[in-house]
Amino acid sequence: MSADTTQTDELSRVRSNDVPASPSSSSKPLRMRTNTAEIDSTITHPGSVKINVTGAFIVDQDSSSPTNVNGSTNGGSHDTKDIRLPNHTAVVSHIAVDIGGSLAKLVYFSREPKSREPGGRLNFMNFETDRIDDCVEFMKQLKIKQQKLNGSRPGELCVMATGGGAYKYYDKIREALGVDVLREDEMECLIIGLDFFITEIPREVFTYSETDPMHFEEPRSDIYPYLLVNIGSGVSMIKVSGPRAYQRVGGTSLGGGTLWGLLSLLTGSRTFDEMLGMAERGDNAKVDMLVGDIYGTDYGKIGLKSSTIASSFGKVFRMKREAEREAEDSGGLTNGDSDPPSSSQTNPHPSSETKAPPFSAPDISRSLLYAISNNIGQIAYLQSEKHSLSTIYFGGSFIRGHRQTMNTLSYAIKFWSNGEKKAYFLRHEGYLGAVGAFLKRQPRNWGRRGSFEESGGLGLDREYPSPGVG
Amino acid sequence: MSADTTQTDELSRVRSNDVPASPSSSSKPLRMRTNTAEIDSTITHPGSVKINVTGAFIVDQDSSSPTNVNGSTNGGSHDTKDIRLPNHTAVVSHIAVDIGGSLAKLVYFSREPKSREPGGRLNFMNFETDRIDDCVEFMKQLKIKQQKLNGSRPGELCVMATGGGAYKYYDKIREALGVDVLREDEMECLIIGLDFFITEIPREVFTYSETDPMHFEEPRSDIYPYLLVNIGSGVSMIKVSGPRAYQRVGGTSLGGGTLWGLLSLLTGSRTFDEMLGMAERGDNAKVDMLVGDIYGTDYGKIGLKSSTIASSFGKVFRMKREAEREAEDSGGLTNGDSDPPSSSQTNPHPSSETKAPPFSAPDISRSLLYAISNNIGQIAYLQSEKHSLSTIYFGGSFIRGHRQTMNTLSYAIKFWSNGEKKAYFLRHEGYLGAVGAFLKRQPRNWGRRGSFEESGGLGLDREYPSPGVG
Repeated sequence: MSADTTQTDELSRVRSNDVPASPSSSSKPLRMRTNTAEIDSTITHPGSVKINVTGAFIVDQDSSSPTNVNGSTNGGSHDTKDIRLPNHTAVVSHIAVDIGGSLAKLVYFSREPKSREPGGRLNFMNFETDRIDDCVEFMKQLKIKQQKLNGSRPGELCVMATGGGAYKYYDKIREALGVDVLREDEMECLIIGLDFFITEIPREVFTYSETDPMHFEEPRSDIYPYLLVNIGSGVSMIKVSGPRAYQRVGGTSLGGGTLWGLLSLLTGSRTFDEMLGMAERGDNAKVDMLVGDIYGTDYGKIGLKSSTIASSFGKVFRMKREAEREAEDSGGLTNGDSDPPSSSQTNPHPSSETKAPPFSAPDISRSLLYAISNNIGQIAYLQSEKHSLSTIYFGGSFIRGHRQTMNTLSYAIKFWSNGEKKAYFLRHEGYLGAVGAFLKRQPRNWGRRGSFEESGGLGLDREYPSPGVG
Repeated sequence: MSADTTQTDELSRVRSNDVPASPSSSSKPLRMRTNTAEIDSTITHPGSVKINVTGAFIVDQDSSSPTNVNGSTNGGSHDTKDIRLPNHTAVVSHIAVDIGGSLAKLVYFSREPKSREPGGRLNFMNFETDRIDDCVEFMKQLKIKQQKLNGSRPGELCVMATGGGAYKYYDKIREALGVDVLREDEMECLIIGLDFFITEIPREVFTYSETDPMHFEEPRSDIYPYLLVNIGSGVSMIKVSGPRAYQRVGGTSLGGGTLWGLLSLLTGSRTFDEMLGMAERGDNAKVDMLVGDIYGTDYGKIGLKSSTIASSFGKVFRMKREAEREAEDSGGLTNGDSDPPSSSQTNPHPSSETKAPPFSAPDISRSLLYAISNNIGQIAYLQSEKHSLSTIYFGGSFIRGHRQTMNTLSYAIKFWSNGEKKAYFLRHEGYLGAVGAFLKRQPRNWGRRGSFEESGGLGLDREYPSPGVG
């Protein structure tokens, strides 16, 4: 019934660029490669666990990932790109969740008891926020599983929570799980997570262009300063000048929630990926007013090409009215010129069902995807200018590895900066906050290149350092 | 049939703030106050006419304005705020038109033959661009009238044209009227028009706030530099550093055309003013996701209030799906959990008519008006920062004197600049380009405070100086 199960399709498709083989991996039986167990099951107290990230890598063919604990494909969407930690042998007894306006993102570590390889992996899941009960149920199952493996007492599982839902659903989670829930600041978690991905995970960060769709950047340590543009339901832009030095400099309410909300109204689409799929097929020139539509040519003096979008959806009003006029004219209303249009004012929906405008759902989807992405790109560029930042990372669940979205964002940054700035993307773009919250429980030994500095460095002694909000 | 006739309602209502009396002026018989004629009908050659603007003022009670020449209320919308030029006595034998993507704006001078007062007035009209034939017909009638009054030869009427339509409809206008059509650069005309309004016309420029809705600025001469944000179908942002020194620094495709297009699809509205009227009654919190919806409270650390819009239309997707699930559940589809949603993917409109989402047209209208206005405000602020401009003028036909729009734009500038910058509006906001084109034919004697410098000053000897596009 729910279409959550299709959510990662597009993601997998785009990202398979760097995975040459196994197009049929999704049809493999589960856990084919996990046969034996050889796990050091050191049980340590939560909070002092050390995670060894040496040799961490992204698992691209993931048939060995666990599916939902309860076996249902309905409750959550399992993101296939787990991160394998081959040298980590300790049991981690906490899970992290980042509950946003539309999606709840979950990260947890799992050993692989039936594998002959040591270590384990970080698992990534997401749930729709309005199905938070499914998410809580999933965490409950994780807790039961964890207890069996670890023999730990119930109180020792700890849930790290961030995002707005960490506050809104705090009591619900605590009561349902009977465990501690530690709330962490959303912005702080985002940058801790991003810093981790940039500095630690190979083949994670990439630039996008049509000619070179997924150009990976090497992990590096000299990452500051940068701008993080996190696109979820809404958009936050965060200037990061050091490991714990950050400031939310702006944002826009025109984000993923706007795209999904408007397209669900306009096209009847019921899943994000259905919308993105339609956008791929659409032609925005059918609904957008281009410079050429206004000028009949380009506006060379200003450097605006004929194909530049002058007004998103700029053709709609005009064409819809034309269609309605024609319908009225053929309906015998041609003689009513001097009458005021009082009837249309009292009825806001004058037979809109019967006179369908000549716009297709794919065209509308593409136009709106362009509009939202371009707009975010422009504002990101302007913020980067204001704050003298030349590196711009785009994160958040809006992007979903979707080619058009990344291409539009990349193009916008390139266009506005005259090629001087670059847009960077991440394969785990939606999980920055969740990973950050996960890591906040692991202050030492994690960030081997300084992504998460030793305590005492920049205020880690304080449990909740105040962010650099100016 | 057409609702063009209601277009100025909102404009009149807002702007009557500074006109204490005569609420019933619109019902007065036409030309009540124009009894006798005392006109110096100096006929001069077009191009060397001098316009005397001494004592120019805005005519607020305008029952003496001519209606459309052909008597129809269908073809064009007559803007009621003519500008009276009491000391100008020459006949001006040209008209100016600024043809944009959605609207064509017309400006012409008319004497008042039956008035006992000398001088005449500048008249302002607009037509929808897709009714360009009505506009051309109106110009034809003006030409005939002008010839009767002036006895001038047909060739002496001259049409100044700007905007994209000056190129697209060049042949059409020339052939229909049999006169010269001089095309002028759009950006240049905008700033010439704006400079004129700022420096010459009392009670034209104002700031807007809820407590002081229309606070007029005195005309002044030290106006540079400033940012002009012209909001038509799309948005252009122009940095102006001197009388003829300007540069289009940016813009956005999310403009009036986007609002009108999306709202015509979403609400069935058929006129701009119907949409604005609905926006006045709506509650955006019904469709927008607020910070409080995500956090359950405010996000104090970052300074985001509970009522801040986190995601425009951010509630829609979620609520629509809930409604659809309920409809399906009650329709006996409760047992289909494990089935993939293949049917909804092949049909992009799964009975969207029968399951109406719980969103009202007024709520949607208000949300989108906020979203578009806020977005323009933020980008304008960021551009003003990048280019060190502290004064921001908003022009263009999108604004239409609408309170919510001006309030949102004002608030955005104030919010983002921490109160350091101000948004300025104009009563003739839609006519900057048309007035600029009109004035380009009158190089001397017009701008008494330097709004239009004497020839030779900054390149007026050249007929088409190249703009400062960098």
